[in-house]
Amino acid sequence: MALRQKIAVLIGGVGGAKLALGLANLQPTPQLTFIVNTGDDFWHLGLKICPDIDTLMYTLAGRVNPQLGWGVADDSTHVLDSLIRRYAWDAWFKLGDQDLALHLLRTAAMRDQVSLTDFTSRIARRMGIESTILPMSDVEMPTLIRSRESGEMSFQEYFVRQRWQPAIQQIQYDSGQGASLPARVDDALTSADMVMIAPSNPWLSIAPILAVPGLRELLAALPAPKVAITPVIGGDAVKGPTAKIMRELGLAVSARTVACYYEGIIDGFVDDLRNPPFHFAGLRTTRLDTLMTDLPRKVALARNTLDWVRGW
Amino acid sequence: MALRQKIAVLIGGVGGAKLALGLANLQPTPQLTFIVNTGDDFWHLGLKICPDIDTLMYTLAGRVNPQLGWGVADDSTHVLDSLIRRYAWDAWFKLGDQDLALHLLRTAAMRDQVSLTDFTSRIARRMGIESTILPMSDVEMPTLIRSRESGEMSFQEYFVRQRWQPAIQQIQYDSGQGASLPARVDDALTSADMVMIAPSNPWLSIAPILAVPGLRELLAALPAPKVAITPVIGGDAVKGPTAKIMRELGLAVSARTVACYYEGIIDGFVDDLRNPPFHFAGLRTTRLDTLMTDLPRKVALARNTLDWVRGW
Repeated sequence: MALRQKIAVLIGGVGGAKLALGLANLQPTPQLTFIVNTGDDFWHLGLKICPDIDTLMYTLAGRVNPQLGWGVADDSTHVLDSLIRRYAWDAWFKLGDQDLALHLLRTAAMRDQVSLTDFTSRIARRMGIESTILPMSDVEMPTLIRSRESGEMSFQEYFVRQRWQPAIQQIQYDSGQGASLPARVDDALTSADMVMIAPSNPWLSIAPILAVPGLRELLAALPAPKVAITPVIGGDAVKGPTAKIMRELGLAVSARTVACYYEGIIDGFVDDLRNPPFHFAGLRTTRLDTLMTDLPRKVALARNTLDWVRGW
Repeated sequence: MALRQKIAVLIGGVGGAKLALGLANLQPTPQLTFIVNTGDDFWHLGLKICPDIDTLMYTLAGRVNPQLGWGVADDSTHVLDSLIRRYAWDAWFKLGDQDLALHLLRTAAMRDQVSLTDFTSRIARRMGIESTILPMSDVEMPTLIRSRESGEMSFQEYFVRQRWQPAIQQIQYDSGQGASLPARVDDALTSADMVMIAPSNPWLSIAPILAVPGLRELLAALPAPKVAITPVIGGDAVKGPTAKIMRELGLAVSARTVACYYEGIIDGFVDDLRNPPFHFAGLRTTRLDTLMTDLPRKVALARNTLDWVRGW
């Protein structure tokens, strides 16, 4: 393998960002490209908001709110407070002032026909991020949630406004109305020495990426090692609704179920030490400590995963 | 005249807002409709900004920054600071956080096809403003400035970014591409017991209103008294570029010039005590203290103007 290994990572959400930080802190530094879920993106108060891209950028730039895992550390909410107090705004989505600055820039760029990919590159560079951050698509591909109680909802309606409480009946991934695989995403995957699927929510964060036309097929055909890391530890998710959704979809809450879900697109799976071992024909597995409670553990998981794959 | 007199006021800018506050504080309270210049409106950072409407609303709601005469009192600039510090934003237009909240709401409303008139009514009501505030048009009619040094500029480019320093060669008023006079503006003028032209900049604030198709003709034909108040006191403007522009356009800096500019649409003119008297055939004039340095003086000018017209 190359000295400066090229790694492409499918990623979304807070758990994914933790691994990203581990990878970005490896020595020697690999060449990293993050292919980020945009199924959560939405328009709110006239602003184009990309939660997963922002979480990743703030994390890599060292600006993320450490308590929440998203948003900007020590951010104020003067604009939001004014909206609520002066104009009775229904503030179910938290907008910090510093966060708003980025939403404003992005929205203005979108109105000026700048692509989300170009805008993201520009901002990431401005934030001092050396890795490449690619939205999975420049075309909007919003994930929709269907529940018995609430019918069809936008992702943020489900995830933030209703705090992922409705029981999911079905998740509908958008296929971008015939949009093709972005050239830079294609390049990043094709030229990668290794592809990783971050320990993100498979159904909410990774599946939307796999729904980008051509991406799943490209991934399946790639000769490079492709490895996923379990988001399920000890029968539960570290954070967020992964386990709850698995139950609602009638699935066993286990790393095995996740590995099964990625069948055909991965050839390696990093399970957690705490989980009961399982074996699939044709799938390499290992068991590592995947709980990323601090930076050394994030770096360790990244290094151990790479070391394991290098030994194949 | 009716006990509760109906007054329609053509208005724009900080000087106009001072008179508006005087009128709104009269006892008995007249029924006030402000027809506001929107020639200064612009899009900035993807936001729809209406400086004259906002100045009027903040003034009437008691929220205006008393030092500046515009913007919100004690506003913070967390978003703007973040834009500058984090993203090297060229911050020539000041955006306070509370002000931003209003721009965001307006922009979202515009995107949802809400008219500027409806949005403004809703917000004014929310701010506790009893007067009616009508944009001169729901169609964008941007004023353009031409100068020898800088060529053609948007109004805010001239006024804010270049601090009205370029020498004006020509001012171009937009006629709204065949837009018709808004029904509510038509009603307000037609049903008014009196029409006032605020002591705003005639060339920058009032002329754009007069350029709304049909408005000048309607005004000329109205039987109600129509009275303008001088923005020129003692050979200068109280604030802003009125006198400078007059010189650049080759005009004498005098109240007489302003009265002349309004010829055919006013039948009364309130001059300032400090100015040399003049007489035009067919134009009633009076001389009052028009310097509105505090609230009592604002109310006094409003009351004295009304009393004078009532005595015709």
